[in-house]
Amino acid sequence: MGSIEGERKTVGWAATDPSGILSPYTFTLRNTGPEDVYIKVQYCGICHSDLHQIKNDLGMSNYPMVPGHEVVGEVIEVGSNVTKFKVGEVVGAGLLVGCCRSCRACESDLEQYCNKKIWSYNDVYSDGRPTQGGFAETMVVDQKFVVKIPEGLAPEQAAPLLCAGVTVYSPLSHFGLKESGLRGGILGLGGVGHMGVKIAKAMGHHVTVISSSDKKKKEAMEDLGADKYLVSSDTTQMQEASDSLDYIIDTVPVGHPLEPYLSLLKVHGKLILMGVINTPLQFVSPMVMLGRKSITGSFIGSMKELEEMLDFWKEKGLTSMIEVVKMDYINKAFERLEKNDVRYRFVVDVAGSKLHQ
Amino acid sequence: MGSIEGERKTVGWAATDPSGILSPYTFTLRNTGPEDVYIKVQYCGICHSDLHQIKNDLGMSNYPMVPGHEVVGEVIEVGSNVTKFKVGEVVGAGLLVGCCRSCRACESDLEQYCNKKIWSYNDVYSDGRPTQGGFAETMVVDQKFVVKIPEGLAPEQAAPLLCAGVTVYSPLSHFGLKESGLRGGILGLGGVGHMGVKIAKAMGHHVTVISSSDKKKKEAMEDLGADKYLVSSDTTQMQEASDSLDYIIDTVPVGHPLEPYLSLLKVHGKLILMGVINTPLQFVSPMVMLGRKSITGSFIGSMKELEEMLDFWKEKGLTSMIEVVKMDYINKAFERLEKNDVRYRFVVDVAGSKLHQ
Repeated sequence: MGSIEGERKTVGWAATDPSGILSPYTFTLRNTGPEDVYIKVQYCGICHSDLHQIKNDLGMSNYPMVPGHEVVGEVIEVGSNVTKFKVGEVVGAGLLVGCCRSCRACESDLEQYCNKKIWSYNDVYSDGRPTQGGFAETMVVDQKFVVKIPEGLAPEQAAPLLCAGVTVYSPLSHFGLKESGLRGGILGLGGVGHMGVKIAKAMGHHVTVISSSDKKKKEAMEDLGADKYLVSSDTTQMQEASDSLDYIIDTVPVGHPLEPYLSLLKVHGKLILMGVINTPLQFVSPMVMLGRKSITGSFIGSMKELEEMLDFWKEKGLTSMIEVVKMDYINKAFERLEKNDVRYRFVVDVAGSKLHQ
Repeated sequence: MGSIEGERKTVGWAATDPSGILSPYTFTLRNTGPEDVYIKVQYCGICHSDLHQIKNDLGMSNYPMVPGHEVVGEVIEVGSNVTKFKVGEVVGAGLLVGCCRSCRACESDLEQYCNKKIWSYNDVYSDGRPTQGGFAETMVVDQKFVVKIPEGLAPEQAAPLLCAGVTVYSPLSHFGLKESGLRGGILGLGGVGHMGVKIAKAMGHHVTVISSSDKKKKEAMEDLGADKYLVSSDTTQMQEASDSLDYIIDTVPVGHPLEPYLSLLKVHGKLILMGVINTPLQFVSPMVMLGRKSITGSFIGSMKELEEMLDFWKEKGLTSMIEVVKMDYINKAFERLEKNDVRYRFVVDVAGSKLHQ
């Protein structure tokens, strides 16, 4: 490794068709440019959106595709203009690796909302090459999209923060929902939902987990420390809880009615959608008008918010609940993720795995 | 008039069945209680929601019903605890005449979101009597729901501010959208929409009127002073305007797609619904997520916001565009309102009309 003349090869695990089965795949990485950080990947989390991508659920997948966007690794080389990162440091990279740098969003440090953002995989980089993600031995990432992992945070623990963590933190921060004493709801208890409980509790909120059945009640209350558990199909429970929440983080990734959750919100409450759902969601206007409630949503977070979030995480001494697996387990892990059979995030020990065939 | 022992009669114009035809109706008003203000009605605006009420469009109408909730009149008697208002002063009353005074909304001076609010007509007052509105010779209103009309504002001009005006002002104020230089959209150019253009322009905003056809272009630009006019069916125009607005005041009172308007919003933009629409509205979640946009709504405004709004209106020297009619024209006025044939608000000269049969 290191900067070499000519082609620089790396090996990752790629899906090659919509079956979504990953297998070893050798590909070319660009040499470290002036703005680049060359990273040896240590850990990479598995996000639910990886599943959509490898299976072409959104109809926009290009193969071979190396997924993975919750990347933590060690800096092994930096470009000539890079002063923020040093060789040997532990850094992270997330869902984006590029943006236009001149639009209103970019100029406001909200590059996640740039219309020309470049995704860390299944996209085309500014040099015309396909981008490939973090289930690979190494990555080259523009320094703007690299973040330092605070010392003392275990790299495998930090991985899920790069997407799931900041996805929850960003809207709470933006919408003025960080102050202690608020009452929050977390709808759906997957990877993002579990981060939601952790982060909201650390902010000093009273946290209600809302789920379609009582299956996850024990773990929500005992393992994650939620204050209350609400079964959405129980109309009595739901009615009693009406007008009680300042916000709901809605992580449900499929179509669902919004009215029952809008009812749970107080005046000025916010329903914050996190799931990319391409079937229309419905509501009637009096449900938002009578209480000046908002239906909104949020998409990951900016690099600035990510830094803030990592500091917050460290300061509060939080831990994510993860299941660390090796790369040869990744297809099984995706299978289990599809059935929500994980508590709560798979993280692949990339550096400790045999990647070559 | 004045406080008398026994029954106090007044005369108004009431709908007696869902045909919605109004005719003279004599009814009883309570005597002026310690907290009450007894008002001789001068002018009362006609709001689109009056139309829904008299025709039982929401299925909740009780007859006989005296509508009218944009009331301006002269104080002719005050209760023993009333110090804020004096006999002879010009005051206004709006859509509400009561609230619980102890819920979270009431305690935050947001009585419009109290679940036990009492409507100024087609509701039941705390004494068990039906409430009746402003198309009547006199009204008795609790002082909490009475507002002083600033000196120098013509009463007929002030009438539409009591509902239409504050309906626009309240969300702009609450959502931090008062600062000059913002770019706002006004969707639909009826009574509320015309107030929207006036108020947004007075705040120093760049105002785009969005309408389904170019029929209202000339009046929007020339009479109301809008900066831009967008025809929503013109996809080229709409595409060019994408990502350009900080907010849209959506006054459309019937079901309509939200996506075209969400597209017009900048990052963090707000779509503010004003129309009570009981058929579901639809959107797909990425439309709000990618840009942290909000779909929200608002319902009239608090008494505090109403006071603020009246001061703002006077300070800016604004005028509403109204058509003043006498009571014997009211049925025709409702007919015309139903066809949007009014520029932009009917105001009934109640004191100058023959009310008795």
